[in-house]
Amino acid sequence: MQTTFTIETTGPGLYEFTHEVAEWIAGDGVLTLFVRHTSCSLLVQENADPVVRTDLQAWLERTVPRADDPSMKYLRHTLEGPDDMPAHIRAAILPVSLQIPLADGRMRLGTWQGIYLWEHRDRPHKREVAAALTR
Amino acid sequence: MQTTFTIETTGPGLYEFTHEVAEWIAGDGVLTLFVRHTSCSLLVQENADPVVRTDLQAWLERTVPRADDPSMKYLRHTLEGPDDMPAHIRAAILPVSLQIPLADGRMRLGTWQGIYLWEHRDRPHKREVAAALTR
Amino acid sequence: MQTTFTIETTGPGLYEFTHEVAEWIAGDGVLTLFVRHTSCSLLVQENADPVVRTDLQAWLERTVPRADDPSMKYLRHTLEGPDDMPAHIRAAILPVSLQIPLADGRMRLGTWQGIYLWEHRDRPHKREVAAALTR
Repeated sequence: MQTTFTIETTGPGLYEFTHEVAEWIAGDGVLTLFVRHTSCSLLVQENADPVVRTDLQAWLERTVPRADDPSMKYLRHTLEGPDDMPAHIRAAILPVSLQIPLADGRMRLGTWQGIYLWEHRDRPHKREVAAALTR
Repeated sequence: MQTTFTIETTGPGLYEFTHEVAEWIAGDGVLTLFVRHTSCSLLVQENADPVVRTDLQAWLERTVPRADDPSMKYLRHTLEGPDDMPAHIRAAILPVSLQIPLADGRMRLGTWQGIYLWEHRDRPHKREVAAALTR
Repeated sequence: MQTTFTIETTGPGLYEFTHEVAEWIAGDGVLTLFVRHTSCSLLVQENADPVVRTDLQAWLERTVPRADDPSMKYLRHTLEGPDDMPAHIRAAILPVSLQIPLADGRMRLGTWQGIYLWEHRDRPHKREVAAALTR
């Protein structure tokens, strides 16, 4: 059983799609999510206080700054703009795939866990997340 | 086939539970581990020299310092103390899920690989790791 | 259905093995890859412009420098040389396991995605990646 989730993004940040996944899954087994891009990521993180997401974004921007930051002047893959290569680096250190066990048709998420697409590019994108259930 | 492993933690650091997992698994397939929290992580790392774990912790504390460190004063989700938001950041860049192939009832771990719960909070916690076998 | 991919490395950098995986897989389900070492990683990243790989390596070397860098003098697990402990740290923050859904015998990779073994040690190594298909 497979599907594709499409998430529309409008710049860097975390886009929750827990609800879309919860509506699709069924039965027992393991859910696999895989993002089909090299400049955005998947993440399981807190979905209570939205400030957590703001702080995560602030940390990432300081830790992997844009290519026009003086500390990043060694980067050479910069044709598509200052958000290009940092997006690849951010995608390398954050998850491209996630697995979540299912029981009785529900994901075994913790109380505060949500599923996010983490966009790293400036311009709007349609992001595809491949999903599969295995038993 | 599913279960939950509970790991009791007493502050930041790596807690091995390879043995508990090895006792539970059986047959062939793939083991999925998923940690049901947003302020601790899973890790597969060397279980020979314990200094590796000390050094990993030292690196993480320097790379994602506590919120009372001057370099982190931009953080705003700090209600629960200076270990709160850094724990979420550490949990974002370290694994929330792991998959390990099984053969003949054994995990296909390398010689030096152990499975760890990496705690990022100061206070004692009971951490739950959801486990599932798929064939 | 399981196998092992062996990747020979000759120093730090990204070694693509997408083609070897594509030749082995079949049918539908989910592919799991698991690297049986604690000083190298797996990665899904862009396989178009090779400069992306050069830039990723440059970033990693600046972010987790070798143990003989003044900023890393707190490390104590350094018996095997200045590339030893940084390799463990790099392996901790990059993937040890990957999962990719399959459809009709093909991985559901995006257009620009390739599968890499990311070597973190200086000396030549034979690296083993355990692979399993689940349905």
